[in-house]
Amino acid sequence: MNIKDYFPIWQKLTSDQQNKISEAAISRTVPKGTVIHNGSNDCTGLVLVKSGRLRAYILSEEGREITIYRLFEYDICLFSASCIMNSIQFDITIEAEKDTEMFIIPPEIYKNIMAESAILANYTNEIIASRFSEVMWLIEQILWKSLDKRIASFLLEEATLENSDTLKITHEIIANHLGTHREVVTRMLKYFQEEGLVKLSRGTIEITPLLKSDF
Amino acid sequence: MNIKDYFPIWQKLTSDQQNKISEAAISRTVPKGTVIHNGSNDCTGLVLVKSGRLRAYILSEEGREITIYRLFEYDICLFSASCIMNSIQFDITIEAEKDTEMFIIPPEIYKNIMAESAILANYTNEIIASRFSEVMWLIEQILWKSLDKRIASFLLEEATLENSDTLKITHEIIANHLGTHREVVTRMLKYFQEEGLVKLSRGTIEITPLLKSDF
Repeated sequence: MNIKDYFPIWQKLTSDQQNKISEAAISRTVPKGTVIHNGSNDCTGLVLVKSGRLRAYILSEEGREITIYRLFEYDICLFSASCIMNSIQFDITIEAEKDTEMFIIPPEIYKNIMAESAILANYTNEIIASRFSEVMWLIEQILWKSLDKRIASFLLEEATLENSDTLKITHEIIANHLGTHREVVTRMLKYFQEEGLVKLSRGTIEITPLLKSDF
Repeated sequence: MNIKDYFPIWQKLTSDQQNKISEAAISRTVPKGTVIHNGSNDCTGLVLVKSGRLRAYILSEEGREITIYRLFEYDICLFSASCIMNSIQFDITIEAEKDTEMFIIPPEIYKNIMAESAILANYTNEIIASRFSEVMWLIEQILWKSLDKRIASFLLEEATLENSDTLKITHEIIANHLGTHREVVTRMLKYFQEEGLVKLSRGTIEITPLLKSDF
């Protein structure tokens, strides 16, 4: 996997710009659980995911969490380079959900090329707009969708990602993804179990075909 | 009020680009209550507010609403020109909250200039990032809703201590009291002002009876 694979507009950059990005990019591998970016004061750089999975989330003052988006192979994370734009004024934390390999492009290199290249600036616009769309979707979920549907959707998405109907996941982690409390998740999962939608055992949640058909 | 007043980067555009934008811009005046943009299929163009006030909101399937942001004099609305970017994939409605005068820049004109001008593309990036920050703030409000209460309590306490509803206090001091950032307090107080809870002027914050009754 190569830097150019992340940029559909790569061929439209000058060879000088291509070289600057390629030469500045650093490869990094982190184990699951590593916090690679923490808040707006931290300007890590652009993160390009080679393998693994990252989770971007926000934290409440009381330590509650909600997942804003997840990043997979070929995804680019801009908000880990918030210093490239003055108007990014929010704190996001990015953590490896699995062992993750990535490229990191230093923010000043990217910013300089973006300043001279309409191509790169417009591509960056698309990345931000794409994340914006995800966040708008999240607001709609939080506001209008009931928690049972959000939990069901989350479990089904996890089953797809893990390619298994038996998920090793705690109620607390689910709560942190969805911005709610562990107790609320536990209560809902017990209700799901009574309805035959899941089977719960220590540390695992098994999804039944009924969950797939009901939600 | 002139088109160039909306673009701090105006002087860095070529005179050809300046002319194209100026000549294409249409003036429009709408009465309070007019829906000027409705959903993602509608590509109205960039809206530049001359006077009045616009409200951008999303609608649930059941017709519930939430204000995403409001636009005042000198503000630019990009999401009314969602066709300029492929990755804007959400439906926003924009309505005049007061009688509003505006300029509208046709989307294809803006898109063409953005494609060739790194200056304009980067400025557009900042506008989107700025709206993104507002939306992230909104998510935090929706989810944890704590800082508004903390700031309100602090202001009410100060008013009691000073025996005055007009507080001479900087946003930074409030931030320092509450262990947060000045920018966060500034944003919250502006929101309070929009909601009629306080009146801000240079160096002072006047508390209205609404703040006392609401918190």
